[in-house]
Amino acid sequence: MKTNIFLLALAISLFAFNKMQTKKKIIFFGDSITELALNTEGYIKKLDSILAQKDLAKNYELIGAGTSSNKIYDLYLRMDSDVLAKKPDAVVIFIGVNDVWHKKLLGTGTDADKFEKFYNAIIKKLKNKNIAVYLCTPAAIGEKADFTNPLEGDLNNYAAIIRKIAIANNCSIIDLRKAFTDHLKENNPQNKDRGILTTDGVHLNKSGNIFVAQQMYNVLSKDFIK
Amino acid sequence: MKTNIFLLALAISLFAFNKMQTKKKIIFFGDSITELALNTEGYIKKLDSILAQKDLAKNYELIGAGTSSNKIYDLYLRMDSDVLAKKPDAVVIFIGVNDVWHKKLLGTGTDADKFEKFYNAIIKKLKNKNIAVYLCTPAAIGEKADFTNPLEGDLNNYAAIIRKIAIANNCSIIDLRKAFTDHLKENNPQNKDRGILTTDGVHLNKSGNIFVAQQMYNVLSKDFIK
Amino acid sequence: MKTNIFLLALAISLFAFNKMQTKKKIIFFGDSITELALNTEGYIKKLDSILAQKDLAKNYELIGAGTSSNKIYDLYLRMDSDVLAKKPDAVVIFIGVNDVWHKKLLGTGTDADKFEKFYNAIIKKLKNKNIAVYLCTPAAIGEKADFTNPLEGDLNNYAAIIRKIAIANNCSIIDLRKAFTDHLKENNPQNKDRGILTTDGVHLNKSGNIFVAQQMYNVLSKDFIK
Amino acid sequence: MKTNIFLLALAISLFAFNKMQTKKKIIFFGDSITELALNTEGYIKKLDSILAQKDLAKNYELIGAGTSSNKIYDLYLRMDSDVLAKKPDAVVIFIGVNDVWHKKLLGTGTDADKFEKFYNAIIKKLKNKNIAVYLCTPAAIGEKADFTNPLEGDLNNYAAIIRKIAIANNCSIIDLRKAFTDHLKENNPQNKDRGILTTDGVHLNKSGNIFVAQQMYNVLSKDFIK
Repeated sequence: MKTNIFLLALAISLFAFNKMQTKKKIIFFGDSITELALNTEGYIKKLDSILAQKDLAKNYELIGAGTSSNKIYDLYLRMDSDVLAKKPDAVVIFIGVNDVWHKKLLGTGTDADKFEKFYNAIIKKLKNKNIAVYLCTPAAIGEKADFTNPLEGDLNNYAAIIRKIAIANNCSIIDLRKAFTDHLKENNPQNKDRGILTTDGVHLNKSGNIFVAQQMYNVLSKDFIK
Repeated sequence: MKTNIFLLALAISLFAFNKMQTKKKIIFFGDSITELALNTEGYIKKLDSILAQKDLAKNYELIGAGTSSNKIYDLYLRMDSDVLAKKPDAVVIFIGVNDVWHKKLLGTGTDADKFEKFYNAIIKKLKNKNIAVYLCTPAAIGEKADFTNPLEGDLNNYAAIIRKIAIANNCSIIDLRKAFTDHLKENNPQNKDRGILTTDGVHLNKSGNIFVAQQMYNVLSKDFIK
Repeated sequence: MKTNIFLLALAISLFAFNKMQTKKKIIFFGDSITELALNTEGYIKKLDSILAQKDLAKNYELIGAGTSSNKIYDLYLRMDSDVLAKKPDAVVIFIGVNDVWHKKLLGTGTDADKFEKFYNAIIKKLKNKNIAVYLCTPAAIGEKADFTNPLEGDLNNYAAIIRKIAIANNCSIIDLRKAFTDHLKENNPQNKDRGILTTDGVHLNKSGNIFVAQQMYNVLSKDFIK
Repeated sequence: MKTNIFLLALAISLFAFNKMQTKKKIIFFGDSITELALNTEGYIKKLDSILAQKDLAKNYELIGAGTSSNKIYDLYLRMDSDVLAKKPDAVVIFIGVNDVWHKKLLGTGTDADKFEKFYNAIIKKLKNKNIAVYLCTPAAIGEKADFTNPLEGDLNNYAAIIRKIAIANNCSIIDLRKAFTDHLKENNPQNKDRGILTTDGVHLNKSGNIFVAQQMYNVLSKDFIK
């Protein structure tokens, strides 16, 4: 009898261990926007809440891998240690703002052709490990709705490059740039350059984090999160 | 008899002189786009043709005052010799492309607040001489129609500043930026960055010169050219 | 008798008034470095102290005309109201840091050829009013002594342009760039980028203000201050 | 007898093959300066000539791996295919000009801290394969000898970073920046910005290629080439 109870406990433990093992890992790979996403009000926490509401939180582990000032080539440099070593099931790449912004800010942005080259190199490494890859377009550098954000033309250009890469690599896209632009057209009547979805035109405020989490859920729930 | 003939000749001369005097001077004040406007296919020549068609060419002298690489403060520096000394009746200011473009190209663009300050200083000097002032918004840096021209956000910003200056100073505006954007939306299905109205995204081709001449005529004919 | 006393008092008053009138005006015309020079520890106050020590302060009125963010063309725009209207006897021009620095910082520096053109235009206007003109070279953008201040090559280039302008216009030069470089070679053994003569690599600390005041006195005392 | 001759021929062939196998591979890894180094007048060809004169050419295979527009992170991206796959014995890294130059030219230079990070990552990968690593400092952006090349301060800064990396990683340094500066001080009396060792201030002319080949030989012959 004791043996039976012991075996039952063992079976339950193994089952639980097995369930734990099957919790799928999603890594959010990006810059300071993603680094901040682990804060209480951050978009990773908000996505976790959405999953919890739908009783899905137990199946997914959301991991932040954001580093401030990162551009596409910084992701490439650190992807072995920060992403591949963690054996994720899916990676959400959210990069591009600094590649554009730092051209003006520091003279150290990224050429469009090299942005594409490094982006493809990252996807190739992830696909080689059978990791699902989701691409985000960069959301905003300035929130003005009348087409006068100084860098928005170049940002739109990099968003277009990412959409093209997504198609070429058969990856799903989370088109934050389009979502932000559409949202701001309706919700920024005073044409402010910050304060609707961001604190400073770039980094997400509470509304922005909720908005991004929802956009991510919408795409991830189509094929990955069930 | 001799005296009569002499008097007649004198009268004709005076009449002719008077007519010559009453030919109104319009100076086109700007950068390389305006420097090139005196070419056979340039927008000043094209505007002259429009006036000729309407039998108005005899009443207006169109004078080019464009210098390549000019920004707003260059106009201010040379306006005494190149504009005021010629005693124009009207001045069409067409500037702003280099103020934006050279930020990226050379690191020597113009801050938005100083752009506005110098622009106002130029208008003040012209108005003090009772010269009619027409303001053009800068037409284009890149002709792509999907909002991905790298500098278009900043260019739109400077166009918005010029519209604001026009209202504050009660000047007529020739809104080339809006006209170009609207035209390209309809006439650039392949989303090319040059070749519709410009040769290189900035300088006007033949179609662009005709287009600009027509835009200028549309505004000038409302109150100045009759 | 009363009349005599009255006349004597009148004579003294007129004499004093005359003396006051003959106090020579020196305007210091520049950017934020000069705007800060009116502070207690500022270089204008320090120069005033040097004059006081030599019992010369009563003969000279030192006037600050520095505005932060100014570049050469900003001086040209405001020179009528801020300099000529005050009828100075001498003007010390101290400009050039922002013309170089803002290329990198904001993309809105000044092209070398235009720097020279505006500088010459300013000198011409001052000389037309028989005002003595002193030119300063820009002192520093970074204090490192091993030739690794990122912008020092370009700054040296603008300093060389100013030296050339001084010769061409027969103006005295206050060569702060040379004086700073020589001083830092001897006095910056740790190769720090700030803290010897500046607070931040650009704006003068107390030692820097005293140093600049002395450099100015050395040159002004050769022909102007006696 | 025939068999003997055959065996002798075979032995000679094998000996030759063996010699060929032991020819040491040196890869020159860099940007357009190195891409051009394979031209008849290029520095790799010139170094080959120096080796030939000393009867050493048969022992070393010099391989060019230069790609125009490359910066430090581009080397990192392509080092597996372009360097490691070729199993070199030594790698001469000659990079840094574009990392500085493109800040101004295109707004896409490299931040100093990231330059260092990628440089170290490259060295680590090479050392892991027991490859000898030689570091060159970037030679020039402008040849003027009076410290007025606009970007020379920043270039000196990156050269200093490379010297520091060399010491930290115990790598030999080929200090082209120092060699160029010293040479130009003596050999550029007219203070020209190009034409002594370069065609355009950056890319080597014939004298420059010979000069660089000699500098490389001087260092390589200390421990690697014998």
